[in-house]
Amino acid sequence: MKSNIEIDQKSGFCFGVVNATGEILARGSIKTKKNGAVDYDTVEEYLSALTPKLNEMIDSLKDRYKFKGIGMGAPNANYYTGCIEDSPNIKWGKGRVVPIAQLLTEATGLKCKITNDANAAAIGEMQYGVAKGMKDFIMITLGTGVGSGIVAGGNLIYGADGNAGELGHTTSVRHNGRLCGCGGSGHLETYASATGVARSAREFLEARKGEASLLREINGDIESKDVYDAAVKGDKIAIDVFEFTGKILGEAFADFVAFSRPQAIILFGGLAKSGDVLMKPLKENMEKNLMPIFRNKIEVLLSGLKESDAAILGASALAWEA
Amino acid sequence: MKSNIEIDQKSGFCFGVVNATGEILARGSIKTKKNGAVDYDTVEEYLSALTPKLNEMIDSLKDRYKFKGIGMGAPNANYYTGCIEDSPNIKWGKGRVVPIAQLLTEATGLKCKITNDANAAAIGEMQYGVAKGMKDFIMITLGTGVGSGIVAGGNLIYGADGNAGELGHTTSVRHNGRLCGCGGSGHLETYASATGVARSAREFLEARKGEASLLREINGDIESKDVYDAAVKGDKIAIDVFEFTGKILGEAFADFVAFSRPQAIILFGGLAKSGDVLMKPLKENMEKNLMPIFRNKIEVLLSGLKESDAAILGASALAWEA
Repeated sequence: MKSNIEIDQKSGFCFGVVNATGEILARGSIKTKKNGAVDYDTVEEYLSALTPKLNEMIDSLKDRYKFKGIGMGAPNANYYTGCIEDSPNIKWGKGRVVPIAQLLTEATGLKCKITNDANAAAIGEMQYGVAKGMKDFIMITLGTGVGSGIVAGGNLIYGADGNAGELGHTTSVRHNGRLCGCGGSGHLETYASATGVARSAREFLEARKGEASLLREINGDIESKDVYDAAVKGDKIAIDVFEFTGKILGEAFADFVAFSRPQAIILFGGLAKSGDVLMKPLKENMEKNLMPIFRNKIEVLLSGLKESDAAILGASALAWEA
Repeated sequence: MKSNIEIDQKSGFCFGVVNATGEILARGSIKTKKNGAVDYDTVEEYLSALTPKLNEMIDSLKDRYKFKGIGMGAPNANYYTGCIEDSPNIKWGKGRVVPIAQLLTEATGLKCKITNDANAAAIGEMQYGVAKGMKDFIMITLGTGVGSGIVAGGNLIYGADGNAGELGHTTSVRHNGRLCGCGGSGHLETYASATGVARSAREFLEARKGEASLLREINGDIESKDVYDAAVKGDKIAIDVFEFTGKILGEAFADFVAFSRPQAIILFGGLAKSGDVLMKPLKENMEKNLMPIFRNKIEVLLSGLKESDAAILGASALAWEA
């Protein structure tokens, strides 16, 4: 039976062995040094933690399974070059081009294909999730940032240099708006990510000082989860934050539809699970901004992958290309 | 030698015979009843004007050439269905679904593929123009409206229903802005088309009443050509209209790049030939709004097809698929 190794850079570097039908045969992870996920100082240090465990897992299964290759989802991973390119969120990747696919092949003897997290999620969704059978859809990951993977005519769009699908960095929503981590401003992810929601909450609380809110009782930094909890309890400011977030996402989605006319836009990530408090304004504002020929035709769906498995399943189809 | 018939719905219904290397072997056109191009009352009337001329041309060449098929570029033409679907600019197409590919096949005995004008232009550019060898580019037609054809990974993006690539109807530039012919508002084409430029000129003249301008001397309606002529003569208001138009296009292009990371954006149509007065603000504002990883990497090019041939060459590659 053919199997793939999957490595995910998030959630504490988890990895697993996946067979052709999407069953996870084995799982593993390496410890992270600190609280944050990606904190090895050098790629050598990272690999010396990862490869013994990887090879141990391969060895334990190689009698029963034929390994096809390794697929890896990682921030700023370039499908074309096999390199992690200047990744601000990976300590050993910042300002560097690291040929991680080649290094993993040297360490394991298996061919390796990499892509960024959101593309891996799109491939996973197409192979095992709600996008099964779809040829045109857009995957949007709503986490700390906003990632995207775009499938058109059955193919993932990589663009001229492997960096297509940066929908979190479109300015369509608020020109000259909030400063983005990438150096731009007004980008979608500064509003529609978990951090964006927390930022909106702080702004709303500041702007509406006289108004009571459950959010004012929170000790320490407000997080998007706090805003969600307050919103479902009926807190007006928290509800308005989600209305605002949904409006911005809906407006942005309308433009995405005009580009590739997907069958569906599929949401993944913590913020995507906010339910009606987010989805209602999102869908309303998307419909309102769609060209008439697209209205009532675009599905907005939640990912069909179990959160705990998604990271490992994500890059699965990718490894078949290795 | 294999040849294709090309029919273009614009410019007074011109058509021609094109061989595999992009030579136009014969040309023809049918008269339009009035000034406007597309004014036959029924599709039957249209076909009874077109098909005798088409068949005459085919007959005159069929001894020397083997005809492969017919490619047609037309507004609201759907590649998947072969129908012109609810085309507001074709008298016999408004509110109707006309199976034009099938009707042409019945009339000529040749297989027929259709797509919209901008997609046809993109295919033509890839086959015969400046996009030769490119796998990722976006074609933008700046005419009465703003059309687009998107090529990613070497494939034209048609989307789930054949209607992808409506970048003229993205709202990224001015939410709740000018009313668009499609029923939406703030769409790119309400600003960045020839009609948009004329509209901007009227607005600027109204808003800056005390200020002299060559545009105030024009009898009748101001057209985009008038604004261009005034701008190259140094007229401040006309120059500002192009600055404004270029800014809006540049901002929109930055978002398009984040989507598909094209190697180039290729401009076609009358307004595209405005030179520096448009291109300078366009490129500046595109660069300013691009994510840092995309800066100084995206070419903005003018179409490589002669205007007089472009309509006929446009759908040429399409007919090879017939």
